[in-house]
Amino acid sequence: MTYKEISKSFLDKAGVTIGDTIKVSKGDIEYEGILLDRSEDAMDSYIVIKLDSGYNVGVNIESATIELIKTGEKPEIGYSGDEIVKDPNKRNVSIISTGGTVSSIIDYATGAVHPAFTAEDLLRANPELLDLANYDVKALYNILSENMKPEYWVKAAESIADDINEGSDGVVIAHGTDTMHYTSAALSFMIRSPVPIVITGAQRSSDRPSTDAFLNLYNSVGAALSDIAEVTVCMHDTLNDGECALHRGTKVRKMHTSRRDTFRSIDTEPIALLKDAEITKTNLPYIKRNERELELNTACEDKVALIKTFPGITEELIDYHIDKGFRGIAIEGTGLGHVPDYMVKTLERARDENIAVVMSSQCLYGRVNMNVYSTGRLLLDAGVISALDMTPETSYVKLCWALGQSDDLDEVKNIIQTNVAGELNESSSQKYFLN
Amino acid sequence: MTYKEISKSFLDKAGVTIGDTIKVSKGDIEYEGILLDRSEDAMDSYIVIKLDSGYNVGVNIESATIELIKTGEKPEIGYSGDEIVKDPNKRNVSIISTGGTVSSIIDYATGAVHPAFTAEDLLRANPELLDLANYDVKALYNILSENMKPEYWVKAAESIADDINEGSDGVVIAHGTDTMHYTSAALSFMIRSPVPIVITGAQRSSDRPSTDAFLNLYNSVGAALSDIAEVTVCMHDTLNDGECALHRGTKVRKMHTSRRDTFRSIDTEPIALLKDAEITKTNLPYIKRNERELELNTACEDKVALIKTFPGITEELIDYHIDKGFRGIAIEGTGLGHVPDYMVKTLERARDENIAVVMSSQCLYGRVNMNVYSTGRLLLDAGVISALDMTPETSYVKLCWALGQSDDLDEVKNIIQTNVAGELNESSSQKYFLN
Repeated sequence: MTYKEISKSFLDKAGVTIGDTIKVSKGDIEYEGILLDRSEDAMDSYIVIKLDSGYNVGVNIESATIELIKTGEKPEIGYSGDEIVKDPNKRNVSIISTGGTVSSIIDYATGAVHPAFTAEDLLRANPELLDLANYDVKALYNILSENMKPEYWVKAAESIADDINEGSDGVVIAHGTDTMHYTSAALSFMIRSPVPIVITGAQRSSDRPSTDAFLNLYNSVGAALSDIAEVTVCMHDTLNDGECALHRGTKVRKMHTSRRDTFRSIDTEPIALLKDAEITKTNLPYIKRNERELELNTACEDKVALIKTFPGITEELIDYHIDKGFRGIAIEGTGLGHVPDYMVKTLERARDENIAVVMSSQCLYGRVNMNVYSTGRLLLDAGVISALDMTPETSYVKLCWALGQSDDLDEVKNIIQTNVAGELNESSSQKYFLN
Repeated sequence: MTYKEISKSFLDKAGVTIGDTIKVSKGDIEYEGILLDRSEDAMDSYIVIKLDSGYNVGVNIESATIELIKTGEKPEIGYSGDEIVKDPNKRNVSIISTGGTVSSIIDYATGAVHPAFTAEDLLRANPELLDLANYDVKALYNILSENMKPEYWVKAAESIADDINEGSDGVVIAHGTDTMHYTSAALSFMIRSPVPIVITGAQRSSDRPSTDAFLNLYNSVGAALSDIAEVTVCMHDTLNDGECALHRGTKVRKMHTSRRDTFRSIDTEPIALLKDAEITKTNLPYIKRNERELELNTACEDKVALIKTFPGITEELIDYHIDKGFRGIAIEGTGLGHVPDYMVKTLERARDENIAVVMSSQCLYGRVNMNVYSTGRLLLDAGVISALDMTPETSYVKLCWALGQSDDLDEVKNIIQTNVAGELNESSSQKYFLN
């Protein structure tokens, strides 16, 4: 017998199959998680369990003291019921799937998570959503969000505009969380919308018992039916499955690798909180439904770099981007917006070659102010544009968009420093530090 | 009369001179700040005031309604009293000045802040420090911290070790805040110390009424006299001039551009709090005074890059660093530690050319885990080393240091993933999110 056959026979005796949730105890140690498959040529008698933490653990079954019980079936993916029928008394919400954990399943062979669902699968797997609205669903693409590119922002914006033109009362975009805040900023600049545009995702995939996908989706549909006609991110507000927070798309950032309440409004509060698909509290003024006409402006330059400064950075890195034909450089500076002063000369060269340079801060919270220190003054003299209170990510996205509108540096500066979608606020934001 | 002469005559009448603190009212608007000088060829009748916020504001004095009162003298810089005499009953603290706001003064001609004080000036300007200890003071260099480089970390470490060898009971380093957390991580790896090594700074320069320099320095000397023999950062714990927090040097980060309580422990708590130069609370276990012998290991590779990924990043950026002879690349990935999957091939090339690649997360909080998603698996297969729960900045510094110890990739991985100075913790850190 191969080792794989040994473990298979052990598992058969316990009545469990790959993908089931099991609990294994061995002395004081106890693990609960999803049983994974192993390769044919496994060279030991371990079974591998995917824990809720995302880690896999191996347990040797050749022990007299091991106990194994099945605590759950392999989750069913997809819904094979009747065709979904529209209710004339309900409003229309579009769901656009782009991939990510919210529309992913575990690969039970390896324990890794792959993008898999379509938007329609998503709806069928969460039938409670049907109580809230009628849906038009489409799978725009199916990628993990670390693979997003500016060209996908454009496609998403066009697709959303199509839906709104066709009568959608609100749009929900299912998106991976890794770069959700880059996409929410891009859509904020590209679309002036008369209806809500809500981006949501999950930190645990939809087929796992601990998934946050349903609550996030359910409240996102609530937000899409609300009066808040902005581009927002709707995700868990705390670790509990209670309320979701609705963050302004230009002021939000993923701040934790694994917590469900990873998304945080930076230097401000969430616009609103939601529970059971209803707004429970609003914190900020917002643009209301039908206050404006739909306008789409997807012009976007993708030859833009985001560079983080660090002790030991060399000016050659800037020269490299100039030589490569980049049209914009978003720098994540230190403190109030600084880079080493030996970099000033190459930033002057960038300006002389008509390359826009925007300065944000790796502090994340607070406002860039290059007037305070001598290095900042030198940078201002070299034409570096302050990102003011934009996050590094939003300032990078806005630079891509601004360079889509103009190649005149003065005009680019004017666009960067003029509020378009709530990304710039007055200086009173210190009170929302680490909230 | 030139415009400058007009404003001078106006200021003379009010009895104020350049550098004084003044309050100007005009209708409902009121500004208080330091009166700055203007150039001889000013073409308007404005006076310029540096506000506490760091901003300058211009006020037109050709108005009948303007009121101006002097509320403070130009601060005296430096102390011209007697020579400082040592007290045989007090312990010895070294103060090493490296520059930065804590040892800076405003340039009253431009309103910008320049590094200026020496460590001795610092002591003379804060005579209350003399009640706590005897001091050996030296100005190691005098730079704004955005200009720090790995070679300066080495000089600082050597200088600290010299002081400890010469009998110092604790060391305080005055440092700019912009890159203080990079330096604190570097010193943590380079020095195993039998005595406290405390880095401090200020968000407002020492000659300004609102300065936080004194409280930070005073508590830093308290920390240097304490039992906590680690490399720490001592800065304001809240907006108030109450307690200071003592952060572990490898777990701290500047999180706000301007607040005094900008430094935060990431995924953990400060080791201790201090008030009136005394420890008021300890939160974590720590290495105690004289628990270990002094060991200095400053071997450090400076051909290391810190690269932040973003939507639209190209693999050519990695190729550029390979071609330029970099020996290490610290990547600030998205989410659990990802880059676009089209970058995997060039990261395999990096490994094949013996370049170490370490992955941290731009989320800042939480732990890298490349086992969960398919992209992460590909990165692990390409030899990318997880930074686990290190911040991007600490992982970059540790990679510089690890490559100083070895050029064998397995050994580098082992160093990166083995705790040296509190930079790696168990996975229970979720509870300290945004604290």
